[in-house]
Amino acid sequence: MRTKLRVGVLGATGMVGQHYVRLLQNHPWFEVSYLAASRESAGKSYAEALAEKGCSSGVMLTLPVHRIDEIAAASSECDFVFSALGPEAALEYERQYAAAGLPVVSNASAHRNDPDVPVLIGEINPEHLAIIPEQQKKRGWKKGFIVVKPNCSLQSYLFPLYPLHRAFGIKKILVTTMQALSGAGYPGVSSLDILDNVIPYIGGEEEKSETEPLKILGQIENGRFVHASGISISAHCNRVPVADGHTACVSVEFASKPTGEEILRIWREFRGAPQELGLPSAPLQPIVYREEKDRPQPKLDRHTENGMAVTVGRLRDCPVLDIRFVALSHNALRGAASGGILNAELLFRKNYL
Amino acid sequence: MRTKLRVGVLGATGMVGQHYVRLLQNHPWFEVSYLAASRESAGKSYAEALAEKGCSSGVMLTLPVHRIDEIAAASSECDFVFSALGPEAALEYERQYAAAGLPVVSNASAHRNDPDVPVLIGEINPEHLAIIPEQQKKRGWKKGFIVVKPNCSLQSYLFPLYPLHRAFGIKKILVTTMQALSGAGYPGVSSLDILDNVIPYIGGEEEKSETEPLKILGQIENGRFVHASGISISAHCNRVPVADGHTACVSVEFASKPTGEEILRIWREFRGAPQELGLPSAPLQPIVYREEKDRPQPKLDRHTENGMAVTVGRLRDCPVLDIRFVALSHNALRGAASGGILNAELLFRKNYL
Amino acid sequence: MRTKLRVGVLGATGMVGQHYVRLLQNHPWFEVSYLAASRESAGKSYAEALAEKGCSSGVMLTLPVHRIDEIAAASSECDFVFSALGPEAALEYERQYAAAGLPVVSNASAHRNDPDVPVLIGEINPEHLAIIPEQQKKRGWKKGFIVVKPNCSLQSYLFPLYPLHRAFGIKKILVTTMQALSGAGYPGVSSLDILDNVIPYIGGEEEKSETEPLKILGQIENGRFVHASGISISAHCNRVPVADGHTACVSVEFASKPTGEEILRIWREFRGAPQELGLPSAPLQPIVYREEKDRPQPKLDRHTENGMAVTVGRLRDCPVLDIRFVALSHNALRGAASGGILNAELLFRKNYL
Amino acid sequence: MRTKLRVGVLGATGMVGQHYVRLLQNHPWFEVSYLAASRESAGKSYAEALAEKGCSSGVMLTLPVHRIDEIAAASSECDFVFSALGPEAALEYERQYAAAGLPVVSNASAHRNDPDVPVLIGEINPEHLAIIPEQQKKRGWKKGFIVVKPNCSLQSYLFPLYPLHRAFGIKKILVTTMQALSGAGYPGVSSLDILDNVIPYIGGEEEKSETEPLKILGQIENGRFVHASGISISAHCNRVPVADGHTACVSVEFASKPTGEEILRIWREFRGAPQELGLPSAPLQPIVYREEKDRPQPKLDRHTENGMAVTVGRLRDCPVLDIRFVALSHNALRGAASGGILNAELLFRKNYL
Repeated sequence: MRTKLRVGVLGATGMVGQHYVRLLQNHPWFEVSYLAASRESAGKSYAEALAEKGCSSGVMLTLPVHRIDEIAAASSECDFVFSALGPEAALEYERQYAAAGLPVVSNASAHRNDPDVPVLIGEINPEHLAIIPEQQKKRGWKKGFIVVKPNCSLQSYLFPLYPLHRAFGIKKILVTTMQALSGAGYPGVSSLDILDNVIPYIGGEEEKSETEPLKILGQIENGRFVHASGISISAHCNRVPVADGHTACVSVEFASKPTGEEILRIWREFRGAPQELGLPSAPLQPIVYREEKDRPQPKLDRHTENGMAVTVGRLRDCPVLDIRFVALSHNALRGAASGGILNAELLFRKNYL
Repeated sequence: MRTKLRVGVLGATGMVGQHYVRLLQNHPWFEVSYLAASRESAGKSYAEALAEKGCSSGVMLTLPVHRIDEIAAASSECDFVFSALGPEAALEYERQYAAAGLPVVSNASAHRNDPDVPVLIGEINPEHLAIIPEQQKKRGWKKGFIVVKPNCSLQSYLFPLYPLHRAFGIKKILVTTMQALSGAGYPGVSSLDILDNVIPYIGGEEEKSETEPLKILGQIENGRFVHASGISISAHCNRVPVADGHTACVSVEFASKPTGEEILRIWREFRGAPQELGLPSAPLQPIVYREEKDRPQPKLDRHTENGMAVTVGRLRDCPVLDIRFVALSHNALRGAASGGILNAELLFRKNYL
Repeated sequence: MRTKLRVGVLGATGMVGQHYVRLLQNHPWFEVSYLAASRESAGKSYAEALAEKGCSSGVMLTLPVHRIDEIAAASSECDFVFSALGPEAALEYERQYAAAGLPVVSNASAHRNDPDVPVLIGEINPEHLAIIPEQQKKRGWKKGFIVVKPNCSLQSYLFPLYPLHRAFGIKKILVTTMQALSGAGYPGVSSLDILDNVIPYIGGEEEKSETEPLKILGQIENGRFVHASGISISAHCNRVPVADGHTACVSVEFASKPTGEEILRIWREFRGAPQELGLPSAPLQPIVYREEKDRPQPKLDRHTENGMAVTVGRLRDCPVLDIRFVALSHNALRGAASGGILNAELLFRKNYL
Repeated sequence: MRTKLRVGVLGATGMVGQHYVRLLQNHPWFEVSYLAASRESAGKSYAEALAEKGCSSGVMLTLPVHRIDEIAAASSECDFVFSALGPEAALEYERQYAAAGLPVVSNASAHRNDPDVPVLIGEINPEHLAIIPEQQKKRGWKKGFIVVKPNCSLQSYLFPLYPLHRAFGIKKILVTTMQALSGAGYPGVSSLDILDNVIPYIGGEEEKSETEPLKILGQIENGRFVHASGISISAHCNRVPVADGHTACVSVEFASKPTGEEILRIWREFRGAPQELGLPSAPLQPIVYREEKDRPQPKLDRHTENGMAVTVGRLRDCPVLDIRFVALSHNALRGAASGGILNAELLFRKNYL
């Protein structure tokens, strides 16, 4: 019988970290063996650390919580780590874990702009993993490396846009997002700020939404990523009183405008590496189109395919660009922990772990 | 001492009708003398009719409620009427009131597409009132006529766009709205549909948002309105869990791209007929620009200038069109009853009432 | 192999009716064979009827929807019916279905006060089913009968109170409920009424909350129910902006005051007929006590045991009565369709179906 | 012409502190001359300090913010101070300000249990101010002293209960509160915790609700407060998704049960010292009874009399105690800054300032 890979979770007591621990219960390939968190939680059992934060998890309760800098312990206790660290901690520690021989599958933004770090969406750019040997060589790492996932806001629209781009060439994207509260972490947005309100600003979000897609759609040249050219993106990002699920209103212009039937067929038939490889966390149907005139809606559609599919609706002509539609993805599942696990599954099946 | 004009409110027991009655208390020029509503409310006092609907108003309580078809009574009891009727009732009755000699200042959509009915925003197209004699002649009306206000969603962005259009010529507008619950009337949206949710569809709203601005920016030719040409508009309209205040994320392309300073100066200095004439309900500063990076917000800005100003923020370059910004207006005040009263004030000062 | 019982759902297109249809998919004993609804839906397929109401269900889509008065069809097409009818329709039709030979398992309030109709909570008063032969004899029904479930608000507190009453004798109950929106059906509460608000009144709810428990805790004497005596109940019922899950703050006075340990042990060990008989929809642990100081919460606890358990917390002394606690149950599952199915399972195992 | 008293605000950049600064604009007797806040804000202008916290106030923008320990500056720059400090800072600094000769009118809980500090509600216990000379003598303070206001949750029900207690003698109070988010300060409750939820616990709130009323209804004996005896209070405190306005469901038992008419008359006629003295912030009608069956509601009633009145409704018999009703007060106005200002107005007119 096959032994499971031993996994660490960095930032295990945060919101995304807790999702990782819960989702990895009963995973067929991975099992949590190491937890690290901030100074306040270290030295306690996971149960104690969560209780002090006022959370209750129900799983992994007896595992001890390590200080984030106990990297030697991690090296001996796990085969790779998921990083759910905040931006500063990610910048400081992810490289140290990688240098210590541990592959780091990260949700953090710290290394997204590094020219040798892939920003991975399994269905879109699995070939970007080819940069890993270059990254290791350049940084002098033997077994460790860093792979990150993109900002949670862009998955809702990059998913349906990618197969259209491949077929028809995208020139312009104008997207307005209505993003969920869980995207800001916990405690995140004050209830006093968002009850009966919309906040038309999320720090750094528009910049990430306008540049990360170009890296994801780009390619490796001379050991570094070169952004896709010829695509302009404009993103208006808003916070709305929705717990989970980012919604995006998207208008697009193509090099060659497709018909609605072509688009619907492409979405219906789209499959990527996770589907072809049958990865455990992969959605069977990655892009789900709803025919109803008022869908997708976060409350009704965010859990489609365990929160791993992107739901799309309202495809129609755009009087300014070519076409427009509405897209939705679960920012805390596909856009965070579940997406990270899918990335690790792909790495494993591609023999990087 | 000058006597006030006597005013009727059609649809007086609905949400907008109640706003009219409340806002017209203590109006310097107008006083409510006639109320009409649906069959269920007719024959009762206003107090009784509201109490049966579970509302409490506090004003005009002893005035009787007439059946909407008691037009003869209206003719003798008032000088003009505000219509807060639903679309079907407006289609049936507004013409009858006008034919009976009563100017109708309407919030309803029924006649917005009539080529001889002005869709009036006092600050933007006061010269459209010049069509009134044509309308009367063509329809055989002596004193009566119909003037309407536009859909509540478009005021948030048409206000800041109009003076820019005048100066620089707008070619393309791509707008995504996040619209308040009160825009759907009462009871309107079910709480079960909108709690923890966004609904990316509002029936008919995108069509209105894409065509009404062209009429408002158009001109009179041969006794009928001709739409502005050379402007493309794309609107994504969403319902969000906000009580009042429509927010719009707007991207625009101009014939000649202005600088940010030029735009801010134009917004700051913009005044229209209501300001020049000192109308009682006119905002002193019709377009208020907020420098903060996360404004406007419905909860914080909807009541600016008694809900009559449009608040704008986040002006910046757009990577796809030329510039982009966020705009907000109070749909139930500027966008409904207060806006209707301002229209009547303009009509009065221009000697149409 | 055993054939499943054929089941009808009355009021199939309403919110509770849709829950029934969805929950009965793959039920081990029952299968939906007949749907009835109001005049507007009749004659269409279930898919069409739901689509016209703007709902999408995904199950039973091809089954036709009957008019509610096509009772002859029901008699031949099903073995018993679930009634999710509104109060007037229930009053008119439930007796007709019963007279036609069909047992009626009802969620409606129409017959709750009938002295020969059991108000059934499987864990509390299964012995009340003994009245069924009396009911049939008195009403001249052969195979048909009516069994109802109580108001959804009282399950949250009657569940934990019942075993305490059995052991220590309850004298006084003072309960304040904070009830979910789905308890008002669909469309139910207007979003404009409840966003940023609490409504301290629900029509008829306090009366039901104060009398139905006395019938449930009562007994059969001379073929009719006699209410439990010596218990005073005071209920304050409030509507809060929560989608699902009624929360109750409860203070109680006993004939003989128990210790906290006694209460916790009784709750932990409590099992009723559904547990003893292993009914398919029965929660394994009907009363779940949470030790955390801030539980139960509707968002976190409503789905405990598939929404069939009642979650209790904050047990402590009451300075005015004896003890107090907080209790929560899922009004749309335990309190509606799932609770009705559990009642039918009990009837089936007790050979009433 | 009389000069205004110069006022300091301690904790000026917090939510309540900002309310004080805004509400004291144009006050007829007081004018803000000194602001103090935490280390991060000190040394900046008020405008800068608020901008850094992401707030915008619009008033007092050029006044400098002092460190909270610059008490000498306060002594020379103001005549008394309002304290909107958090509990620890209040415990450390309020005494120092009083020792430096400054009367402290506090919103903080730090000194509420001190036997020589009055917990003041102007309409209820103005005679408690008589302890001030004792407090000064005992503590060796010359001009300074401390007066506090009670917890914001209890005003909603203590207001209507006080005149009934005076007339009929209250024995038992059982109250369940549904408290607004602003009661937790800013940022306070995470939006993720309260959207679509109720939290049946607020740390320390039930204890305060059960003991502070006894001090307020108590009397001075031998230079210290003695609690009212013979009254039992049980409070269940809940947090609900409402921005402002605490709602309370109250059941009461009296020594001698009054009729409903007696109660309504007493509420209607109730006036206290603030009304008799015509204090600028006093509500004309301190207790407003609404006849509608579903009132008071926070969204509709919190602003009654500028948020200074308590609104009551649903008076009816209680099957467990004697009578029950629902009460509401604006926690952030009457319950915080406006209430503090009213206390200062009373102190001024009673010659304590």
